[in-house]
Amino acid sequence: MSSSFNPIYLDYNATTPVLPEVLDAMLPYLRERSGNPSSLHPFGREARAAVEKAREEVAYLLGCLPEEIIFTSGGTESNNLAILGSAAASQQRSAVVTSVIEHPAVSRPCEFLERRGRKVARIGVDELGVVRLEEARRAVDDGPLLVTVMHANNETGSIQPIKELVAVAKERGAVVHTDAAQSVGKIPLNVDDLGIDLLTVAGHKLYAPKGVGALYLRRRTPLTPVTMGAGHERGLRPGTENVASIVGLGAACTVARLSLRVESERVRTLRDRLWASLNAGIPGIRLNGHPTQRLPNTLNVLFPGVRSSVLLDAAPAIAASAGSACHEGEETASPVLLSMGVDPVEALGAVRLSLGRGTTERDVTAAVEALVIAWENAR
Amino acid sequence: MSSSFNPIYLDYNATTPVLPEVLDAMLPYLRERSGNPSSLHPFGREARAAVEKAREEVAYLLGCLPEEIIFTSGGTESNNLAILGSAAASQQRSAVVTSVIEHPAVSRPCEFLERRGRKVARIGVDELGVVRLEEARRAVDDGPLLVTVMHANNETGSIQPIKELVAVAKERGAVVHTDAAQSVGKIPLNVDDLGIDLLTVAGHKLYAPKGVGALYLRRRTPLTPVTMGAGHERGLRPGTENVASIVGLGAACTVARLSLRVESERVRTLRDRLWASLNAGIPGIRLNGHPTQRLPNTLNVLFPGVRSSVLLDAAPAIAASAGSACHEGEETASPVLLSMGVDPVEALGAVRLSLGRGTTERDVTAAVEALVIAWENAR
Repeated sequence: MSSSFNPIYLDYNATTPVLPEVLDAMLPYLRERSGNPSSLHPFGREARAAVEKAREEVAYLLGCLPEEIIFTSGGTESNNLAILGSAAASQQRSAVVTSVIEHPAVSRPCEFLERRGRKVARIGVDELGVVRLEEARRAVDDGPLLVTVMHANNETGSIQPIKELVAVAKERGAVVHTDAAQSVGKIPLNVDDLGIDLLTVAGHKLYAPKGVGALYLRRRTPLTPVTMGAGHERGLRPGTENVASIVGLGAACTVARLSLRVESERVRTLRDRLWASLNAGIPGIRLNGHPTQRLPNTLNVLFPGVRSSVLLDAAPAIAASAGSACHEGEETASPVLLSMGVDPVEALGAVRLSLGRGTTERDVTAAVEALVIAWENAR
Repeated sequence: MSSSFNPIYLDYNATTPVLPEVLDAMLPYLRERSGNPSSLHPFGREARAAVEKAREEVAYLLGCLPEEIIFTSGGTESNNLAILGSAAASQQRSAVVTSVIEHPAVSRPCEFLERRGRKVARIGVDELGVVRLEEARRAVDDGPLLVTVMHANNETGSIQPIKELVAVAKERGAVVHTDAAQSVGKIPLNVDDLGIDLLTVAGHKLYAPKGVGALYLRRRTPLTPVTMGAGHERGLRPGTENVASIVGLGAACTVARLSLRVESERVRTLRDRLWASLNAGIPGIRLNGHPTQRLPNTLNVLFPGVRSSVLLDAAPAIAASAGSACHEGEETASPVLLSMGVDPVEALGAVRLSLGRGTTERDVTAAVEALVIAWENAR
């Protein structure tokens, strides 16, 4: 990433750049291969083949069948389709179980269902930002139709015990969805290992373009479409397929599949070095989230005695996020951190540093320098 | 357009290629300008500025204010948001008036509302494929909440009397939506001239990429979002903005604004030449749709004594559509043509030839030759 300012980009959890090899895969579909996959002539068949190849690539990364992948316009739409579509498909059961740390793309559809008379239970988290399984056990007593808990938190990176949650939920026959927008491409993930029924993929969090995503839907899981139109995506998601971006998502999944383990170790090493240096340079700095069960690229820290917005203004050499960057920044404490028991005043000093494929050792060294100086000036 | 077959592309109503100048505008946002518009650092501000510039470009083409434009994932989503969002926003009124020739992206949401207990009235069309205003006058007697009639039909190109429909609907206080997926960029269009409250734009029908669209929403028109999430697009359409494609849509609207009149006359001349030559070469061929109040690029014809699928198979030199190409091709007669009173057997010989910016005089000559020979062999 570069701009006229050329700050060091440490906001990969907000969005990732499109990888050059992903863009290369897309370009023919933004140039001469411009058919509509529904057309029966060669232009259409060429576009259809590209969409179906991409479906295979996404499925391969997740460990599922191609026909279990529905392409959408992104993580928000996938989450809405999973939650509202599951609710619409269920006549018998009405309750939903979710967590207190979900992204608005999950929490808002749940609130919508609540306003429409469904019962929504929200599981709390411990001080490391991990959902409390014992609360989940109590919450599923109602026999909910759906349990939806994110795979990894966008702010802290804490990885949730989805496999254990699935075991709890399946005892009561619930469908289980996880918003994996932040984990796909960052950590190994297999839908059968997790035992999940529905899983959200967001293209722009894994080096595919913005405006494309996928929903994994396990065979025989009931789902009612929430938008209506022609019969695209097996009748579950209408609209002419976003061919170029779908091809990009497929290519990004292949890159992730082939290099995820090596790359995540590289990024983890850099991230841990960043933390060690900040910890050495800033007395009283604290880590938010789980020390080990955490996305390898994510470092959420509390800078003592300073507001994060002031700190980041004083550190223009880096581009990072104060709180969750997926929606408009506000000077209020992060609800995720508050739910973990972080002091409301201290929480205002939280900064999320998220690394990625473009991050170098030099970036880390420069970021530490910038942040330490900014903190000394700003506190 | 080109492929290994290199057929002549005459299916611009199914989808258009991305114009080179549109792709050029997009590329920086698929490369170095990769920020999330919600981020507060320079990468985010750069992306936000690009989205807002594109919003101005779309607004300029439609003759509205930038804040009246909501970006979506395409025409289908815009139609769903307009129809379901208007219905959700209205407590008092429940009826919907639509036409019998709508695209599934309009007719299916209307059917959904019907299943949920709303009254849906469908206006018929005359033999030229134009809605009957006297039926509209009767249909609005109920005081419907919403009238939704397309601006130009995707199959025949017949342009609907939206201005007159608006006058009829406004007498009864209805909100009026038009699906302008096929007309934006093909004919001059101004939302105030039409008097419309909601208007659907589909990027890939006007040389922007697939997977992006817009909904024009007149100020103070009530609308409830149908997907829930963070507060993007003034709370009406959540999800990280598809920056590159939105930039592409803006660029395509600028191209349309600057060259629409000249280009539409060029295409109209070619289209009329195509029709004259086919009419001279194929005894009994008939034109579907309005002779003059019709999209300048669209030619829907009935080939006598032959099924269109057989005819098109016999003419591999051209890529055109038998019936509407936006959804899976079927060997059943087009409901649009049937609603115009076309004989069900004759309707099976319908072919839609839709021209565009890439169409040349040579293409027209070659297409005529290919179609006449194919018809002679296939009938």
